[in-house]
Amino acid sequence: MRRKEFGVEDWQEIEQFMSEMTFGILGTIGEDGYPNLKALNFVYADGAIYAHGSKVGEKISDLGRNPLVTFAIAKEYALIPSYFTEPVYACPATAFFKSVVIKGKAVLVEDLEEKAKALGVFMEKLQPEGGYEPFSLENRGYVSQIRGVAVIRIDVEDLSAKFKFGQNMKGAKREAVVNGLENRGKELDEETVRLMKLYCPAHREG
Amino acid sequence: MRRKEFGVEDWQEIEQFMSEMTFGILGTIGEDGYPNLKALNFVYADGAIYAHGSKVGEKISDLGRNPLVTFAIAKEYALIPSYFTEPVYACPATAFFKSVVIKGKAVLVEDLEEKAKALGVFMEKLQPEGGYEPFSLENRGYVSQIRGVAVIRIDVEDLSAKFKFGQNMKGAKREAVVNGLENRGKELDEETVRLMKLYCPAHREG
Repeated sequence: MRRKEFGVEDWQEIEQFMSEMTFGILGTIGEDGYPNLKALNFVYADGAIYAHGSKVGEKISDLGRNPLVTFAIAKEYALIPSYFTEPVYACPATAFFKSVVIKGKAVLVEDLEEKAKALGVFMEKLQPEGGYEPFSLENRGYVSQIRGVAVIRIDVEDLSAKFKFGQNMKGAKREAVVNGLENRGKELDEETVRLMKLYCPAHREG
Repeated sequence: MRRKEFGVEDWQEIEQFMSEMTFGILGTIGEDGYPNLKALNFVYADGAIYAHGSKVGEKISDLGRNPLVTFAIAKEYALIPSYFTEPVYACPATAFFKSVVIKGKAVLVEDLEEKAKALGVFMEKLQPEGGYEPFSLENRGYVSQIRGVAVIRIDVEDLSAKFKFGQNMKGAKREAVVNGLENRGKELDEETVRLMKLYCPAHREG
């Protein structure tokens, strides 16, 4: 995987983002020649993406024919209106976002121990407050459930991340966007300003 | 397109969802055999999805080789913890969400009038408060911009929507989820309860 291309700090940001995000889009290649896209909850663990679902369906048939899949995780933080930086033309309008796109081979996990472990990590992420008995093959109530569910593991071959927060904006333009966001005060605007500063090349060098 | 399969009310809900959502994931088929997924702002207008971007890049080369694309729009409303309905096992844990998946042929729009119009609709959606001169080929400041940007139109051949809000939950289980959400009171929980009621088959029949 291309993970090695990221610096340690970047990698921590990427892992953090993947742990905060609860769902992504799985892309497979359909029998009809179109990509098939499906929203799925996921967990990133041990260098792989895990998802689960029914053993029957388009997703599973696609994987049987072609295990090459892509998984995308994306969150939009802010629409940046043109007038933050430009009084006349619409062209500077843009969006700030984070996205991580993973390519890899999808494997249907058959080993019951691995399935139970993956489902456990899944629950720890999506229901961290607990309130259930841990997945285990010793627990009779779980065995048929673990057998019955399809667990998909995507072994990451390539991971690319794009965190777009105006990194190549400079001087007055950059300041205008920061001020615009601070004045607008929508839900994620404060966080967006924080990320603009965090990812700013100048701030980093300084 | 399969749009005709939806009832009028359903179709209104789907259009409403597409107009509220600012971005989706475009899936193309890459040269390496993997699906390529990319987050893009979009607008749905005149029975097509429009997006724009650079004239050079993976997305555009993919379309040149293979115009069959898929566009997915998804929003998660609520993670439903297992303990809302089940004291012991984790299995009922699920997520309520809306997703719309569109398959179609992607066309690179060359006609400048259509490009200007699409960019106009785009801005009306993403910057409804205005603050810019409308796109027009009469406006000299826009002509080279309109020429320079790639506008992609996806002519919808198939549209499928999944709005999952516990439609097949009944009686005490359904009530337990409603109560759980009302007591939890996370940001989207109230809206999720509203949608559970709106999409409930029993409520509809009544």
